[in-house]
Amino acid sequence: MTDPVPASLPAPPYYAVIFTAVRTPGDNGYRATDDRLMELAVEQPGYLGIDSARRADGLGVTVSYWKDEESIAAWRKHAEHTVARTHGREHWYASYSLHVAKVERAYGFTRTADE
Amino acid sequence: MTDPVPASLPAPPYYAVIFTAVRTPGDNGYRATDDRLMELAVEQPGYLGIDSARRADGLGVTVSYWKDEESIAAWRKHAEHTVARTHGREHWYASYSLHVAKVERAYGFTRTADE
Repeated sequence: MTDPVPASLPAPPYYAVIFTAVRTPGDNGYRATDDRLMELAVEQPGYLGIDSARRADGLGVTVSYWKDEESIAAWRKHAEHTVARTHGREHWYASYSLHVAKVERAYGFTRTADE
Repeated sequence: MTDPVPASLPAPPYYAVIFTAVRTPGDNGYRATDDRLMELAVEQPGYLGIDSARRADGLGVTVSYWKDEESIAAWRKHAEHTVARTHGREHWYASYSLHVAKVERAYGFTRTADE
């Protein structure tokens, strides 16, 4: 699980990978692999940040941010990530969608202490 | 709350608006406004779909998809949406980030019945 603040990011342009997925029932080894992949992702060249949330009905939205297309492609080819994707299709996900998008604009808001 | 399947979308290119936000404690009228805005959004020209999830610690990720920049700008100017954004900064959100991104590629997966 990521920190309860939105990921802090540089000025655009950069890339967002939007992964929206519905889990199958049960853990089936998902949690341990998810934790491991999160540890690995933050070490990858071009990784900028991640925000993730899942609903009680199983639908989750995870957005990871990357410097460029090359860093997305390199992470995609990472051996443990490749194995996990196959396992995900076989065991963890009822359905998912993946969107690769170029971030053109970004804004942020943080409540000040006196508000 | 959207259906527990990822939004069904046309072929790219189109736009994603990624809203990542941490709620303040309590409802403060949030739920009713959120339901109302969801009803309105689906009626807007250029609206393609939405996926949303929130964690127990208050962080939520909502991705709405739009045909083009013009449809995003028109929804941004909608009177009820404008009022809600101001109310959000004053009452509902501890922090948020908004990313506008052009979807370049999209993939989907749906488990078949015999898997």
